[in-house]
Amino acid sequence: MNETKFKKIYSSELEKIETKLKKVIGNNKPESLYEPCKYALESGGKRLRPFLVLVSAKAVGGKFSDAYNAALALEILHNFTLIHDDIMDNASLRRGRPTVYKKYNSDTAILAGDSLIAYAYRLLLKDCKSDSINVMNNFTNGIIEVCEGQSYDKDFENKKNVTLDEYLLMIKKKTAALAETCCAIGAEIGGGSKEEIKNLASFGRNLGMAFQLQDDLLDVFGDEKKFGKAVGGDLIEGKKTFLFLKAYENAKGEDKKELDKFINNNGIKKNQVAKYRNLYLKLNVAEDTKREINKYSNLSIRAARKVKDEESRQILEHLVSSLIDRIK
Amino acid sequence: MNETKFKKIYSSELEKIETKLKKVIGNNKPESLYEPCKYALESGGKRLRPFLVLVSAKAVGGKFSDAYNAALALEILHNFTLIHDDIMDNASLRRGRPTVYKKYNSDTAILAGDSLIAYAYRLLLKDCKSDSINVMNNFTNGIIEVCEGQSYDKDFENKKNVTLDEYLLMIKKKTAALAETCCAIGAEIGGGSKEEIKNLASFGRNLGMAFQLQDDLLDVFGDEKKFGKAVGGDLIEGKKTFLFLKAYENAKGEDKKELDKFINNNGIKKNQVAKYRNLYLKLNVAEDTKREINKYSNLSIRAARKVKDEESRQILEHLVSSLIDRIK
Repeated sequence: MNETKFKKIYSSELEKIETKLKKVIGNNKPESLYEPCKYALESGGKRLRPFLVLVSAKAVGGKFSDAYNAALALEILHNFTLIHDDIMDNASLRRGRPTVYKKYNSDTAILAGDSLIAYAYRLLLKDCKSDSINVMNNFTNGIIEVCEGQSYDKDFENKKNVTLDEYLLMIKKKTAALAETCCAIGAEIGGGSKEEIKNLASFGRNLGMAFQLQDDLLDVFGDEKKFGKAVGGDLIEGKKTFLFLKAYENAKGEDKKELDKFINNNGIKKNQVAKYRNLYLKLNVAEDTKREINKYSNLSIRAARKVKDEESRQILEHLVSSLIDRIK
Repeated sequence: MNETKFKKIYSSELEKIETKLKKVIGNNKPESLYEPCKYALESGGKRLRPFLVLVSAKAVGGKFSDAYNAALALEILHNFTLIHDDIMDNASLRRGRPTVYKKYNSDTAILAGDSLIAYAYRLLLKDCKSDSINVMNNFTNGIIEVCEGQSYDKDFENKKNVTLDEYLLMIKKKTAALAETCCAIGAEIGGGSKEEIKNLASFGRNLGMAFQLQDDLLDVFGDEKKFGKAVGGDLIEGKKTFLFLKAYENAKGEDKKELDKFINNNGIKKNQVAKYRNLYLKLNVAEDTKREINKYSNLSIRAARKVKDEESRQILEHLVSSLIDRIK
């Protein structure tokens, strides 16, 4: 094949790959996670790997169009390795631009790389034909949600006006999504119906929500000896948990000013923990949190009760009550 | 369900999970990658996620034993998130032990986490039934090899007696494995026969090897203007490339002493690059490297020639020659 013909095919495919690559992330949120991903994917390069995928598909009698998603997957996977390797190698420049961790920071680069792995899988699965796809899709979406949740969590450290809804979305992604994935995958593999899978996914998600809120509650109101660690850790670290955000919602006047200090100083000193615990009590935060926990645990119990298999039903119900009653 | 019965089921499954979890990594090498993985997986914990997978499988009429691999996958995925999150959160302790990045370092923890994602997928795929499994397995193995290759590469920075074989194994994993994966996946999706897939995998692997060795060669003997970056980067960074290792093999007397300095000082100064280039020329290193490149590119061409589809065959052959003749 002469250079002209090769170049014509290669550059035509390259153009398609670039266009498709731009659409992979699109306008997904949070920006703190996806802006660095897009930055990495837009860095150009030879795109040799996706081209190899396409030609190999054609080489055995298939068409380029059979394998575009797989081609994108391999290019994205390659970019994930570059992002992480650049951190390890202290590399400042790649293709004439600052590397992802130099432009942003290491933490951002770690997470951007992690999420690109999952996007790669997601694309790859689009070119696979089979019934294991649901399992793999669940798994992939689970990873993406965890990365997004962690990204929101880091964002909120520096965001002064986090809302309760934003917080609930964050823990849904960071904690509840993986519990949901566990249950959905188990049900899928066990041969459950669509409805059964959806029901167990709901069980896992609501259990995860209740679990995280209970964790927030124990951090302030747990018995130090039984909890096994010093209480008030979230307060000292300045974490805007459900309890804090609820306190802020309920507070007025001097109390609100006190809570503003927490926001502005990114947390409190260790010797202020008792003071904050009393403030929370005054503002009915524990009751409000318990009500929220009950909401999710009831949804979880409701899902458990729909399970036909007697023993599993009992195990699931027991899990909910033991997690909610836990003291550590 | 009463606490005793629940505990009996839970602890019996927990024990099985712990046993199986220990076997996931086994004695895989390199230790620099897998020791931190094992450290993370052996940290105990409630193992709630794998238990959720098992119970959900049973809940829809399946058996615990249908979903053990998937259960392990979710526990491993969870551990991956913990390892990376601990870096981002500057967390020193987890379950009473130093976190992975504190015990080792951030780079090790990033890579350990990355490889655990792939191990999670590998396990998950064992519990899936379908023909997309080959594609996903190829992809998974590709990630694992890239992580292993990067780990060897970092190891070799501090290892004084790297052999040529070790170097070739490293680039096979770090660079060639992903090119192999590209071709194998493309061929799989294109509906190729087992033999065709194997042949294209071989094409990609050998192309990747030739490409990396050519890269090593250009770093020392490339035309600075055409190469687009300063030559001698590998020499300055102290990288024990194929060229260096070949030079070391060929050298005697004073020349060997000079190369020992390179090893002991982890590289050379910028103003010594010309001196080393001359030393390499004297030791016939360029010829030896070109011979090695030819070996791999010939294997690659041989595989390309077996391809039935005329146009793809030509594209693949063109790719080999253009990559080998490249000057940047």
